[in-house]
Amino acid sequence: MNQELFTVNNLWIMVATILVFIMHLGFAALEAGLTRAKNTVNILFKNTIIPALGLITYAFIGFNLMYPGEAFSGGVFGIAGLGISLPEGGNTSAYNEGYTFFTDFIFQAMFAATAATIVSGAVAERIKLGPFIFFSLLYVGICYPIVGMWKWGGGFLDTLATPFYDFAGSTIVHSVGGWGALIGAYLLGPRIGKYKDGKTNAIPGHNLPLATFGVFLLWFGWFGFNGGSVLSADPGAVSLVFVTTALAAAAGAFGALLASYLKFKAYDITMVLNGILAGLVSITAGADLMSPTDAVIIGFIGGILVVFGVVLFDKIKIDDPVGAISVHLICGIWGTLAVGIFGDLSGGSQILSQLVGIFSIGAFCVLFSFLVFFVLKKTVGIRVDEREEIEGLDINEHGMHAYPDFATKE
Amino acid sequence: MNQELFTVNNLWIMVATILVFIMHLGFAALEAGLTRAKNTVNILFKNTIIPALGLITYAFIGFNLMYPGEAFSGGVFGIAGLGISLPEGGNTSAYNEGYTFFTDFIFQAMFAATAATIVSGAVAERIKLGPFIFFSLLYVGICYPIVGMWKWGGGFLDTLATPFYDFAGSTIVHSVGGWGALIGAYLLGPRIGKYKDGKTNAIPGHNLPLATFGVFLLWFGWFGFNGGSVLSADPGAVSLVFVTTALAAAAGAFGALLASYLKFKAYDITMVLNGILAGLVSITAGADLMSPTDAVIIGFIGGILVVFGVVLFDKIKIDDPVGAISVHLICGIWGTLAVGIFGDLSGGSQILSQLVGIFSIGAFCVLFSFLVFFVLKKTVGIRVDEREEIEGLDINEHGMHAYPDFATKE
Amino acid sequence: MNQELFTVNNLWIMVATILVFIMHLGFAALEAGLTRAKNTVNILFKNTIIPALGLITYAFIGFNLMYPGEAFSGGVFGIAGLGISLPEGGNTSAYNEGYTFFTDFIFQAMFAATAATIVSGAVAERIKLGPFIFFSLLYVGICYPIVGMWKWGGGFLDTLATPFYDFAGSTIVHSVGGWGALIGAYLLGPRIGKYKDGKTNAIPGHNLPLATFGVFLLWFGWFGFNGGSVLSADPGAVSLVFVTTALAAAAGAFGALLASYLKFKAYDITMVLNGILAGLVSITAGADLMSPTDAVIIGFIGGILVVFGVVLFDKIKIDDPVGAISVHLICGIWGTLAVGIFGDLSGGSQILSQLVGIFSIGAFCVLFSFLVFFVLKKTVGIRVDEREEIEGLDINEHGMHAYPDFATKE
Repeated sequence: MNQELFTVNNLWIMVATILVFIMHLGFAALEAGLTRAKNTVNILFKNTIIPALGLITYAFIGFNLMYPGEAFSGGVFGIAGLGISLPEGGNTSAYNEGYTFFTDFIFQAMFAATAATIVSGAVAERIKLGPFIFFSLLYVGICYPIVGMWKWGGGFLDTLATPFYDFAGSTIVHSVGGWGALIGAYLLGPRIGKYKDGKTNAIPGHNLPLATFGVFLLWFGWFGFNGGSVLSADPGAVSLVFVTTALAAAAGAFGALLASYLKFKAYDITMVLNGILAGLVSITAGADLMSPTDAVIIGFIGGILVVFGVVLFDKIKIDDPVGAISVHLICGIWGTLAVGIFGDLSGGSQILSQLVGIFSIGAFCVLFSFLVFFVLKKTVGIRVDEREEIEGLDINEHGMHAYPDFATKE
Repeated sequence: MNQELFTVNNLWIMVATILVFIMHLGFAALEAGLTRAKNTVNILFKNTIIPALGLITYAFIGFNLMYPGEAFSGGVFGIAGLGISLPEGGNTSAYNEGYTFFTDFIFQAMFAATAATIVSGAVAERIKLGPFIFFSLLYVGICYPIVGMWKWGGGFLDTLATPFYDFAGSTIVHSVGGWGALIGAYLLGPRIGKYKDGKTNAIPGHNLPLATFGVFLLWFGWFGFNGGSVLSADPGAVSLVFVTTALAAAAGAFGALLASYLKFKAYDITMVLNGILAGLVSITAGADLMSPTDAVIIGFIGGILVVFGVVLFDKIKIDDPVGAISVHLICGIWGTLAVGIFGDLSGGSQILSQLVGIFSIGAFCVLFSFLVFFVLKKTVGIRVDEREEIEGLDINEHGMHAYPDFATKE
Repeated sequence: MNQELFTVNNLWIMVATILVFIMHLGFAALEAGLTRAKNTVNILFKNTIIPALGLITYAFIGFNLMYPGEAFSGGVFGIAGLGISLPEGGNTSAYNEGYTFFTDFIFQAMFAATAATIVSGAVAERIKLGPFIFFSLLYVGICYPIVGMWKWGGGFLDTLATPFYDFAGSTIVHSVGGWGALIGAYLLGPRIGKYKDGKTNAIPGHNLPLATFGVFLLWFGWFGFNGGSVLSADPGAVSLVFVTTALAAAAGAFGALLASYLKFKAYDITMVLNGILAGLVSITAGADLMSPTDAVIIGFIGGILVVFGVVLFDKIKIDDPVGAISVHLICGIWGTLAVGIFGDLSGGSQILSQLVGIFSIGAFCVLFSFLVFFVLKKTVGIRVDEREEIEGLDINEHGMHAYPDFATKE
């Protein structure tokens, strides 16, 4: 390949890297905004330290597990070494026509911490900090790269007769986070006061501008998440991905607006925000395959699903303060299935392969999360004590308030 | 054209698309920050749902009205069909040397919702949600694309003997929004308590960091708004646009600082913020034509105008909570005229063409906005009732507070 | 050079320009978040007006001082004229293979205001607005460009036998800001109540989500600050810089987490945030030279240093509300020295040259800052009076509150 196209391809993947990076701020803002002021420092702390430690962990071990290369064998596990170092030709198009070795690493590394950050929202306001960080490092450094390898590293899901298809990670990133979120929220139990006398009590988020910021930043970053997953700056492919991504997000907002208005008779901003994310997660598996109309339908259904997901999890008393399980797990599954329903790959054998991917990755993540959270629960404990939960994690775990100058209610 | 230049051109327009996208968050933050806490959810809701529905509307009808192509006839109206679908060669430089068909659509679509978002600020804190969304969809889907076509779609303003010139939309985007804002604010009337006993009472914005965020994000996005309007990555043209855009914004801040200090004897952050926007709107029509010195002068005058605009509209009791009419209408007109005063196109016949553009587009927007708002006013009503306005729109229209954990004054 | 590579190179420097631009919002958010609500408008005002006026000042004089070109003589001072105007061939690769003349200017201009913005944090909550703006303009327009020229404009630090090395400005940007911050904070004295009866009283920041936003935006922008300093889109060089920048930031967070946990037994979010910045400042001088492992070590040490820096300055009663001196001066020095310790340039003669750079630039900045602040102090005064400081600068200098709808404590 010529140097000019290599340079512009690599530039786009680097810009996409920055866009995915800022999604971590998006998650921080969304999760902080949708929870209470007394736990804000805790959320900010988790969402700051996890991308930071995640980057280092992924450099040390994760990238090597996810892309084992020559060392690969057997389709389910492999490792290329420890740490990262530039291979011969790693700066040239001989490594890849779309990017250098270092671009490859840093783009993938920005994705990696996402899986743990998704969990963070679902377990918010009651999980102990230390155990959560421990879980996150294992999830980012080991669980995510192993299941990621199954498809993106050339593992068994990629070598099925009809290969599993997951363009930018509806399953590989979002469901992975979603399964961890489900297991974490289940093992922790609901926040004090959330379900009482058979009733679900809304615990409103303390800062809706912050939550809105978060969702817009996530949408902003998603252009890099999906657009960068083209792995080159190919004009036709990337611009189609931009259109499907934007329209699915928009249709997700619309779907959630309709569903929540019909259900609750109110214009609920948090549902619209989650609808946008639902649309984005839903299109992620097939963003490069769909027509604009397909994208609108897929996003719209995602937006409806997220509203019913939130209602459903409350019914079974899985307390997910920010709706992360509905957004990332339910819509992650939906988006992955949609690949087999819409577009060029539609058909029975593709749907079957999609189910194989969803279930195999789901099974591994559930087992992994359960094992880690369960051992932590039985040893150091994973939940803060009652007094700490009521007073807030900020003052107890961090010795500070997020907004010390303002008077709070109660 | 060769594939390399086509790829880099297209990449820049896609990056510019993302930058214009984030301006919607900028508007949301600015408008929420400059209004009261009791109406924050309402503002966030509007500024989230309008870009979302706007994207879908623009895909369905707007883009076809704005770029009617073959179907075009008569110079004032045309339509290319409904929905968007890739034409033959739409992914190649045969479509355009600067971008693919899908890049073209998504870049234009991000612009489109802006016009309605500008209106949102001026009618804030008292308009009913449903009618406003209805107005917005018509404005984004029909009004904006029709007047946009007059110039950018090859209509009559583009075929004048001396063609009307509006590089990135001082008139076509900002004045269009500004006229809708003026009509909306006029038909709604002022907020309760704003003008009493012949006096204007300041109703301060509830969150100035949020407003500051908004303006910086708008400035950030404007590099894509103006820079992307070069419609290629041409190094000389785009870099000049970056310089004129940045210097006009800076000079707008300076102009507003001086004017507001002389007038009010205080360092008013909201005036400086609006001064930045004033500079940006003012340079938008001629950002590709001006020297750095011209840009400073144009932005500086814009910054002064915005201060006097705010005073003027208060004098005639047009209540515009965020100063949107001064920023987008007054400076939109000023920037459009400046094209005929400064730079290569200066001269009487150009000024005349600029006036033709300003007036024809203004007349259409005024008629369109008046018609829609007036019919809405006489049927479903456009203003919330007094109790709702005093209690706040958040609790009445949305059933939630933006900051439920914090104690408020009064 | 061919047009394709020139276009993609220039595109990257323009994108990097926008990323550096948004760092000004990052500084505004960080500094506002880490100080009290009663001084928020003042901080926002300073951090808005200084980049604005800084851009104009740098266009008028700074760029000409920093890159004197032909006019250059003697290695310590030169000037190319006043204002900026396109030289012949300024739009072509004949000017530079990486960027046009206007891209060169605007990228440098975005850097320039940073130096003053760093000072802003250290002198917050007690400095008079007018004198600070005056200082800032001189610092951005004269001091920074002169010392910048010593290296980047081809001055004496660039022509040493072993040239001083400072890739993106650990010394030239960050220490320059840091020295001004140190002198300003020293001449102002501490805030009322900070040091009493031999004890240091923490004055907590009023909005930690805002501070977190600030740091993430700074990290986001730093990819442009360091990545753009490659001065082309060279795939190997830019992608290495992305990796070293990201890993150093991550390791800085980790270092500060460990050091602050060991010292204070609490998970202090403000320390982690400053640790990220510490890592970023530390890697800046050698981001293009280091291996990923080097970057982790350099960032990690930076993160530890910043914690001890904060403790140290409190011990000697230099009151720096946001930790700017520790972040930018101490880590700026550390990062500059690290160039001589790690990587290809390690060795005694390089360390010596690094010391020459650190001391010569430090001496000039200390003298310059002292002179300007001292003259201001003895004439118009630099500190607000006691009543104003206690009531807050917002209501006294600006006549407004940042959050008028919320009840505050006390």
